[in-house]
Amino acid sequence: MSPLVLVSHALCPYVQRAAILLAEKGVPFERRDVDLANKPQWFLDVSPLGKTPVLLVGDVPVFESAVICEYLEDTVLPRLHPEDPLRRARHRSWMEFGSAVLAAIGALYSAADEAALRARAGDLRGRFEQLEAVLEEGAPYFDGDRFSVVDAVFAPVFRYFDVIDTIVDLGLWHGLPKVRAWRRQLARRPSVVAAVDAAYPRRLLDFLRGRDAALGRRAQGSAAARMNRSTSRCAAGDM
Amino acid sequence: MSPLVLVSHALCPYVQRAAILLAEKGVPFERRDVDLANKPQWFLDVSPLGKTPVLLVGDVPVFESAVICEYLEDTVLPRLHPEDPLRRARHRSWMEFGSAVLAAIGALYSAADEAALRARAGDLRGRFEQLEAVLEEGAPYFDGDRFSVVDAVFAPVFRYFDVIDTIVDLGLWHGLPKVRAWRRQLARRPSVVAAVDAAYPRRLLDFLRGRDAALGRRAQGSAAARMNRSTSRCAAGDM
Repeated sequence: MSPLVLVSHALCPYVQRAAILLAEKGVPFERRDVDLANKPQWFLDVSPLGKTPVLLVGDVPVFESAVICEYLEDTVLPRLHPEDPLRRARHRSWMEFGSAVLAAIGALYSAADEAALRARAGDLRGRFEQLEAVLEEGAPYFDGDRFSVVDAVFAPVFRYFDVIDTIVDLGLWHGLPKVRAWRRQLARRPSVVAAVDAAYPRRLLDFLRGRDAALGRRAQGSAAARMNRSTSRCAAGDM
Repeated sequence: MSPLVLVSHALCPYVQRAAILLAEKGVPFERRDVDLANKPQWFLDVSPLGKTPVLLVGDVPVFESAVICEYLEDTVLPRLHPEDPLRRARHRSWMEFGSAVLAAIGALYSAADEAALRARAGDLRGRFEQLEAVLEEGAPYFDGDRFSVVDAVFAPVFRYFDVIDTIVDLGLWHGLPKVRAWRRQLARRPSVVAAVDAAYPRRLLDFLRGRDAALGRRAQGSAAARMNRSTSRCAAGDM
C-alpha cells in the first residue's frame, strides 16, 4: 500500500473519523496539520473544497471524510461496516445523521445570544432524542458488541461536550440513558482517545472563547471564575 | 429483492441521483412525492432529517442520497462505480464536490440582491473551472466512455441551468468547453431525461419566481416580457 498522509486540523471532527478508522485497522500514517485560517497552496491543490480531512494515498488525494472511510473499508481489513448491504446502508444513513449533528453543534457554538443558544440546544437535544430511539438497550456500540464505522462518526460528536459541559449545562443528556452510555463507551476506546492530542480540550476552549457568540462569552466567564479561584483565596460563595 | 419506493420531491436534485441510478440499473420502483413545505408524519417517521430522498426497501428506510447510491451499487448490477478502489474513491470525492456545487446553486438563487447574485455566480463559476481542470478532453462522461455514479450527481446540477440560463446570462459557461460538452452529453442520456417529469422546467421557474431574491425577481421580469410578446404584437425593439 502507498504511504498514507492524513491532512488534518487539530479540532476537526471529520478528521477524527479517519484517524479512528486508521487506528482501528492498525494502519501507520503521517498526520499533517494545516492552518485552515491561512490555507497553504499545497493544501488547496489537494483539497478542491478547501476542507479537512484529505487522505493522500501516495500522491493521490482522497477528499471528504465519508469517502476516506469507504476507501479504508475497501482496502484495509478488518471490515468495520456490517456485511449485510441493507444493514450497512442503515449505518451509512446514521453516519450522515452524525454530520447533521455536527452542523447542529456548529450552530450551537455560533449562536449570537442566550436565546439563540437555548434554541440551538433544543435542536441538538431533539437529535439526541432521535438517537436514543434507535439505540439498543445495553449495547455498548451503535450495533451491538462490535465497534463499527458509525461509532467513529459519533465519538467526535460527543467529545465536544467534554468541554462544552464544563461551560454550561444545556440539558442535553437527562433522560437519555442509551446515548449517555454510548458516549461513555466511545470515550474510553483507545482509537478514540488517540484521535486527538492532549492539548485538544484547551484548544477547543480557546476556539470557543475566540468566537463572538453566547457560548464563547460564557466560556470567558467560566475561565475568569476558574482563574479567580486558582489565584485568590476562595470566598464562601465559590464553594 | 423487496419492492422499492423512492420518496421524492419533484424538484429535488438529490432525488434525481437515485432515480437516474435506478433507471440505469433497470430496477422497477414506485416514486412517492411528498410536500416538503408540509411534511406528513409518515415521512418524518422514515426520514430522521426530514429530507428527500428516502429509499424504502420493503419497510426499511435508507436515507441520504449518497447512501442510497451505494446501496444500489452494493445490491444491483451493473456496477456503475469503477472497480479500482482508489479510482472509486476519486469518483466518490467528486460526488461530494457535486453536493457542494448544489449548495452553491442554492446560494445563487437565494442571493438577495444583484450584487450578491453576481458574487454567488462568481463562486459557482469557480467550481465549474475546477471541474474543467479535472475532466478529460473528448471524454463523453466524467471517466471516459462509461456512465458512472458521479455522472448521476452532475446531471441534476446542470439541469438547473436549462431554466436559469433562460432568465439571465451569468457568464458561467464561456471558456469551459469540457464542462459544456459534459452537460450536453448528460442532458440527452435517457435515464437523466426520465428522472424528472415534463412539468419540471415550469415548476422550477415557479419555485424561483416565488422566492424573494434577485434571481426570482429577474424571472418575474422575464416572464412578464414573454407574456407581453405572446399576447401583443411585437415592437421593433423585441427582435
